[in-house]
Amino acid sequence: MIPRERLIDIARQVYRSYGFTPIDTPALEYREILEGKAGEESNKQLYRFEDHGGREVALRFDLTVPLARFMAQHAGNLGTPFKRYHVATVWRGENTQRGRYREFMQCDFDTIGTRSVAADIETGLVIHDLMQALGLTDFTIHLNNRQVLNGLLEKLGLAGQALPILRALDKLAKIGPEKVAAEMASQAGASPDQAHAVLRLAGLVGTNSEILDRLSPLVDGQETGQAGLDRLREILAGLQAAGIAEKHIRLDLSIARGLDYYTGVIYETFLDQLPEIGSVCSGGRYDNLAQLYTRQELPGIGASLGLDRLLAALEELGGLERTQTTAPVFIPFFDKHRLSDYLQIAALVRKAGYGAEIYPDPKKLGQQLKYAGQRGFQVALIAGSNELDAQQCQLKELATGESQVLSLMPPAAELLAAIEQLVD
Amino acid sequence: MIPRERLIDIARQVYRSYGFTPIDTPALEYREILEGKAGEESNKQLYRFEDHGGREVALRFDLTVPLARFMAQHAGNLGTPFKRYHVATVWRGENTQRGRYREFMQCDFDTIGTRSVAADIETGLVIHDLMQALGLTDFTIHLNNRQVLNGLLEKLGLAGQALPILRALDKLAKIGPEKVAAEMASQAGASPDQAHAVLRLAGLVGTNSEILDRLSPLVDGQETGQAGLDRLREILAGLQAAGIAEKHIRLDLSIARGLDYYTGVIYETFLDQLPEIGSVCSGGRYDNLAQLYTRQELPGIGASLGLDRLLAALEELGGLERTQTTAPVFIPFFDKHRLSDYLQIAALVRKAGYGAEIYPDPKKLGQQLKYAGQRGFQVALIAGSNELDAQQCQLKELATGESQVLSLMPPAAELLAAIEQLVD
Repeated sequence: MIPRERLIDIARQVYRSYGFTPIDTPALEYREILEGKAGEESNKQLYRFEDHGGREVALRFDLTVPLARFMAQHAGNLGTPFKRYHVATVWRGENTQRGRYREFMQCDFDTIGTRSVAADIETGLVIHDLMQALGLTDFTIHLNNRQVLNGLLEKLGLAGQALPILRALDKLAKIGPEKVAAEMASQAGASPDQAHAVLRLAGLVGTNSEILDRLSPLVDGQETGQAGLDRLREILAGLQAAGIAEKHIRLDLSIARGLDYYTGVIYETFLDQLPEIGSVCSGGRYDNLAQLYTRQELPGIGASLGLDRLLAALEELGGLERTQTTAPVFIPFFDKHRLSDYLQIAALVRKAGYGAEIYPDPKKLGQQLKYAGQRGFQVALIAGSNELDAQQCQLKELATGESQVLSLMPPAAELLAAIEQLVD
Repeated sequence: MIPRERLIDIARQVYRSYGFTPIDTPALEYREILEGKAGEESNKQLYRFEDHGGREVALRFDLTVPLARFMAQHAGNLGTPFKRYHVATVWRGENTQRGRYREFMQCDFDTIGTRSVAADIETGLVIHDLMQALGLTDFTIHLNNRQVLNGLLEKLGLAGQALPILRALDKLAKIGPEKVAAEMASQAGASPDQAHAVLRLAGLVGTNSEILDRLSPLVDGQETGQAGLDRLREILAGLQAAGIAEKHIRLDLSIARGLDYYTGVIYETFLDQLPEIGSVCSGGRYDNLAQLYTRQELPGIGASLGLDRLLAALEELGGLERTQTTAPVFIPFFDKHRLSDYLQIAALVRKAGYGAEIYPDPKKLGQQLKYAGQRGFQVALIAGSNELDAQQCQLKELATGESQVLSLMPPAAELLAAIEQLVD
């Protein structure tokens, strides 16, 4: 939980720096709100029951459907644009696997009520800032636009088959082009030429500007595709203007994201050293989030940070704190008659801004210091009755065992300066 | 959610400054873990159902029973003392009232594995620091010790009737001494003399040291009561040594807390201006938290911050933020051709540590500034194409309407200094 709280804090700070505000919604929604909103799989996984008032209720399986319900209900009062983040637990009654649990946290941000390219760009910026704030340097944000794919499908006469085509395309990295073409044929009735055309688009490689150039003739004269291409140009220009390094952004026509509701730009984020864990932050633009609950049009764009994947990744990359304490300073309860002195010292240290824990029982010093070492405290502030009478203490750095004798006489400036130097 | 997040952040900071570490447990526990653990009322209110694997499960109704289960399972690995905080949602299928919901958050801290008076004192210190960190100055932490009450009841021959006696006593402030005496008679078979003796103890008033003096003859010669009195003396001395002002601590022999599991010191916290909302932070010492799940003895002490009550109180006392944004700086999308410039300016402002939001659509300036005012942004950084060409902008304080023209030329030191001065 210590690294998890740190990760959530960082995400919240980044969201807030762009003006996103926190919301919360109940874990329990009326069953009819959640049922049938995200395909058969979600339906099967829904935890549902009857409450004490005989109401059919269910536990939310994501934060997007509750957001849609929330916006349908409150958009009139809240006004738009409405930028929200939501960090909360969701439940899915599925088989557990490594990194996949029945109860887990999601960490979403969304901008509702605008079709502006500014919001598309900002979503990429937030993802970039999240990765940087987490201390990650080797990451690539993949970027696509559903409009480009849709334009090509219209041109090929496959517009009505967009969903099965995109779902097949989404598997490209996993199963390769031949199996994708076969699935496009079996699931969407695509001819070999049609499948080839889609795969050629998805397979475009090069620098971002090379890809834009190569893409241009493929969508030429096709309105949707051309608009999608122009939008991608604007987004790339905006990301660059905001100072994002070229290496972090990759135009990737192969990412489609299987979810039906995406209609515009799509983002996925990969860690260069750990591509196998998949995207750690994904999202995209949707035309009408709340159409199931209201007639008001509520276009928006959002993305979700994969907390569990990121924690696993940070652990593998060595970026996780190992400590089991939240306070750096340990104060042994050394002399059983001097508790009041230890309480005074701890108050002094805390007042200066450093967390301090007093061991609760006057056990042997060795045993107390063993506890401190195991928990990961950084320094111990040791004083027996002789030291206390002389208003002194020993400040011991636990990693090295080195110690120095310092005055406890208020304001104990030297002691506090030494702590400042030794703790992170 | 903005004030709620601030409140939780403050609580976490205070908990951490004493070395408490975060834990989380699943919202869903096996039904048998939760059932029958906190009386008939909790049982009736339990949300329970069968999961997809045919397991009987239920949603937790507090954070204490899951902590008991958690400690029984993990105390061997974690070691003691184990100091944890837990901020999480709980569910109770009851009738909703103002400030009382079916789904709400608890915010607990506990020290497990020690009977030390140091932990008793520390619990009071944490409560004190929580109140101060929330900006509250007029609060009183009421303090009692179940041992003193138990000692008196032993002396009166009422030891076997302790629970109904204490439950009646708990209502003293609400229903007055006569009705309490009547309840003691009807529920515990107490004679008028016995009830009078309990009420005399509970009614002791004066300064803390006066109460200690008056208490002394009442428990004299009775071992449990004498030990309880000595413990109270030690706790008061410790709180004083740590620098807590006398006015914040009140020995109050009338608080009993109905919960069966308390065995030692008890804390309740009242806001002097709003006594009617009840205690905003309560807790106490228990002998054996996990006895239902393990034979290992796990004594401890803990308390719970009442988030909903505190939010209601802070609202009434005017201590709640009114803003609906998390960022202080608003950047209108003034000239539709200059989005890249606004993105650059926002990046510059964020890099200096100030949250900044760009309005997503190039609507009329007045409309954008109205949005900014409603949301509670503090300053607007306004630039049309002329200003941008001259590398300048207007910095407008939204509350006063005053504005100044400043250079955008990087590093824009004057602009950033002006923002620093205008935002909280």
